Amino acid sequence: MVDILHRVGVVSSPDDVYAALTTIDGLAGWWTEDTDGDSDVGGVIKFRFEPGGFDMKVLEAKPAERVLWEVVDGPEEWIGTRISFDLKQEDAFTIILFRHEGWKEPVEFMYHCSTKWATFLMSLKKLAETGKGDPAPHDVQISNWH
Amino acid sequence: MVDILHRVGVVSSPDDVYAALTTIDGLAGWWTEDTDGDSDVGGVIKFRFEPGGFDMKVLEAKPAERVLWEVVDGPEEWIGTRISFDLKQEDAFTIILFRHEGWKEPVEFMYHCSTKWATFLMSLKKLAETGKGDPAPHDVQISNWH
Repeated sequence: MVDILHRVGVVSSPDDVYAALTTIDGLAGWWTEDTDGDSDVGGVIKFRFEPGGFDMKVLEAKPAERVLWEVVDGPEEWIGTRISFDLKQEDAFTIILFRHEGWKEPVEFMYHCSTKWATFLMSLKKLAETGKGDPAPHDVQISNWH
Repeated sequence: MVDILHRVGVVSSPDDVYAALTTIDGLAGWWTEDTDGDSDVGGVIKFRFEPGGFDMKVLEAKPAERVLWEVVDGPEEWIGTRISFDLKQEDAFTIILFRHEGWKEPVEFMYHCSTKWATFLMSLKKLAETGKGDPAPHDVQISNWH
């Protein structure tokens, strides 16, 4: 089992970070502007990017504490994987513990997604701290795979 | 076994990226300004940060292709882990496949290091592309753990 793990601290409340993870507007503010769908538990959120996208089923949404998605459509390597965000408060920070788990193999695309997730989590931090993130198509280019 | 994996593409030659990984000046330009020691195979490089640091033994250094270090001193969770950089050319990019492997457990510190490595690899990219990276103590703060 190989997982992508990240930890980012946001100078903002857990409620604000939770909103950025559970509302279409919030998600569009840091991951991709082309976000649509139903962000309630049981709903499916559609994230679209230039080269394609991901459909996520919302499995858990516990206010100010935890969000869990399952990938129900997208690149083959992603389907069936799960993405979670666990929130806690430490000092002036809301700490996000991020996991993207269930990858079958550590393929090169996984290396890419690991780095890309880090930059998007920094975009989420920026959104919550300044009001403006760097969602696609304004995201940081990290390589030839974008 | 849990590993940290990243993929970054640098618009620069494999030789230049290799130099940034195998010379004290290069390493000081993207990871930490306080870098010292012997960067030849068999040597030990000492990387120091505000809160402490890491000593890396250079196990492999294959020009323009691969660098492998073993952590011989530093935080307990890091000792004995290995860090590798594999380089290849794709389009206008030198692709870095990064691995930090051998973590015993996916402790919270590993989540932090995963994100932090991503930001330092972006600093390496910036150094190679613009001549100026963001090494400690000028590195991006990602959380209360810095």
